[in-house]
Amino acid sequence: METETEMNTATRIIDALNWRYATKKFDPNRKISAEDMDTLTEAVRLAASSMGLQPYRFLRITDPDVRKELREVSFDQPQITDASEMIVFAAKTDYTDADIDDFLEESQKRRGFTDDQIADRKKSIQKHVAGFKGEDLLRWNARQMYIAIGQLLTTAALMKIDACPMEGIKAPEYARILNLDEKGLKAFAVVTLGYRSDEDGLADQAKIRLPREILFEEI
Amino acid sequence: METETEMNTATRIIDALNWRYATKKFDPNRKISAEDMDTLTEAVRLAASSMGLQPYRFLRITDPDVRKELREVSFDQPQITDASEMIVFAAKTDYTDADIDDFLEESQKRRGFTDDQIADRKKSIQKHVAGFKGEDLLRWNARQMYIAIGQLLTTAALMKIDACPMEGIKAPEYARILNLDEKGLKAFAVVTLGYRSDEDGLADQAKIRLPREILFEEI
Repeated sequence: METETEMNTATRIIDALNWRYATKKFDPNRKISAEDMDTLTEAVRLAASSMGLQPYRFLRITDPDVRKELREVSFDQPQITDASEMIVFAAKTDYTDADIDDFLEESQKRRGFTDDQIADRKKSIQKHVAGFKGEDLLRWNARQMYIAIGQLLTTAALMKIDACPMEGIKAPEYARILNLDEKGLKAFAVVTLGYRSDEDGLADQAKIRLPREILFEEI
Repeated sequence: METETEMNTATRIIDALNWRYATKKFDPNRKISAEDMDTLTEAVRLAASSMGLQPYRFLRITDPDVRKELREVSFDQPQITDASEMIVFAAKTDYTDADIDDFLEESQKRRGFTDDQIADRKKSIQKHVAGFKGEDLLRWNARQMYIAIGQLLTTAALMKIDACPMEGIKAPEYARILNLDEKGLKAFAVVTLGYRSDEDGLADQAKIRLPREILFEEI
């Protein structure tokens, strides 16, 4: 029984990952349920990050006017307005003492560290953060965030929810529209989520991925 | 029925993501089966990347001597030698014409593009790649790779396979040991995979994640 379940799990995952594609045309009438959004956002929240710091924020854009404005600075890609959901992935440009305190407050709540342990951890994170030069901290933060994108895409696929990860956005315009500078954030990517339109011809196209012999090496 | 299946899927995903943790102590005697490794590596291969370019390579390290050597330049973390599997995530330092040809050869095979279409696509990718300055191309490539890390971690969790994503590695030493410079690669992270040891006290600790009200904003 266990073996059969495991095989089913493997098959279901690979089938889901083959089923998914970067959806270009969403059905504007189909909405993701609140329950499913809870699952998707929880998957994003649970994503791993280096030292657990989660140096990023997620902006869920539900205001149709803001969506329209963002579409104009996203090369007019229709997913921005037509998909049921839109999440902006923004990395922290810094990791401030206030960020460290947020993290440690949660750590203390969950694991009951003593004040001395918390003070030690604070110093250790401060030292780690100070070790980055110039924009390297932002870049490191952004990389961590892409783990959450991967976790979201996998989760959505398993739930038969379509997604389109998009980097074709004008970051400075996103900063202006969403007040990202004052939030200490920089937008790197968007994931739109919903259900594919029957008219999206891309849905039937074969997936292009490098063959194993190019992508993997065994040493 | 459909609703029940969907609920089960959602519950199973969130349960799996809560079950997983950055495993510090692996059971050195438990090995991942070849079938399960096929699933894990296929999930990595199927990961989304910008324009589908997959500007990275995965090195599966099976040679115990190489593992020992890598552990020495990974702050002596025991996961490197004790976990059943070790995959090095290396991003392309460039994206050469040869890389573009590999990608387009696969595209042509899968979607039957004409030679003219392929020539157009080649020009368009060349132009995109030329738009990056200095190390920005490497950084972009690396970010794409972290999507694959996220997809791998989610997949492993669903299969009840433990994983530890690790950035605590000395990249120049990895380059030397694995000849990464001549391969046009730079190592950013390692994921070790296997099964947690009963002795890993961390397994029972509460997971620390920022609360929704800090991590998400609705606009």
